[in-house]
Amino acid sequence: MADQPATPRRRGAARTDELLQVTLDLAAEVGYAGMTIEAVARRAGVGKHTIYRRWSSRSALLLDALSRAWTTDLDYHDTGDVRADLREQFLRSAPALTDPPIGPVYRGLIAEAQSDPALRATLHERFLHTVEQSTLDRITRAQRAGELVPDVDLEFAAEVLCGTLYYRHLLSTRLVDEAAVDALLDMFMAAYAVR
Amino acid sequence: MADQPATPRRRGAARTDELLQVTLDLAAEVGYAGMTIEAVARRAGVGKHTIYRRWSSRSALLLDALSRAWTTDLDYHDTGDVRADLREQFLRSAPALTDPPIGPVYRGLIAEAQSDPALRATLHERFLHTVEQSTLDRITRAQRAGELVPDVDLEFAAEVLCGTLYYRHLLSTRLVDEAAVDALLDMFMAAYAVR
Repeated sequence: MADQPATPRRRGAARTDELLQVTLDLAAEVGYAGMTIEAVARRAGVGKHTIYRRWSSRSALLLDALSRAWTTDLDYHDTGDVRADLREQFLRSAPALTDPPIGPVYRGLIAEAQSDPALRATLHERFLHTVEQSTLDRITRAQRAGELVPDVDLEFAAEVLCGTLYYRHLLSTRLVDEAAVDALLDMFMAAYAVR
Repeated sequence: MADQPATPRRRGAARTDELLQVTLDLAAEVGYAGMTIEAVARRAGVGKHTIYRRWSSRSALLLDALSRAWTTDLDYHDTGDVRADLREQFLRSAPALTDPPIGPVYRGLIAEAQSDPALRATLHERFLHTVEQSTLDRITRAQRAGELVPDVDLEFAAEVLCGTLYYRHLLSTRLVDEAAVDALLDMFMAAYAVR
């Protein structure tokens, strides 16, 4: 970096990106427990104060690292077949949300949020609500296209679709696999598909 | 206890009950973080080894404390109206699973289970699976009674019913309230009620 002609502001942005990438590298290597401010500082070759200047806590750093790793590849496709698009998206995102780097960071933040209501609110607002909302957008488009019954509020259905898969991932030893996704979509389509 | 004519075996059982009750009292007073083996031993007036003789870890102690607090009041009623019985049970159990003593112990164990797959398996087997199974039993009886459509496997539906409410409780700041339970049951009945 030293030989790049960066303005102080651009250099700051580059350093932020670098610190988030170091955090994600650590997530993949040592998991959530090892992702301390100390470990990130050591790996990045900076002092802890450099990290605390940008993030007030480990949670704040990990939330931003999660945002960086969370790509638009997690958005729904729209082929005009709502069941197929939901299926494809659930099966594509399940491993992305489970495997490093997202998996350990996400699961660790969810664990910490159990004793920290403010973190739970932030986590929901920045990630889970985003997932629910993109699901709601996709099924609302299907409703407008006549695939799903009209005059039904689908907001809670989006929560059911997301919530069931998160429950399985976080609270059981079962996988979010094809059988689970198909069973969930069977119920969703039985409730809302136009016959 | 010293003046009770207890056999050593009965005395041991009484002491186990007492230690679990002390654990639950602490849960109500100081929450999960304060429920250490040390704190339980201090409150009960015993050495730490007395606790470790019965439970190999804090998680093991807390799992048994949770079992003790979990009463059969959490079972479903069967009035012959499946929607009403599910609704009544969800609204009755939601505060029981949220408030002390169950609430902080359960939420804390769920948090620890995120970094401990063996604990996650035990927690699912002893508690979450039990909830799913009693839900499945109730809706299967409704299917046999002709309230729900025949020839549909309802096992995943039971997971959807439980999972959605756990998701809301654990991962959002929203409440498991009447509006949420009614929306969930609207979807369930739209999918499976005999029309």
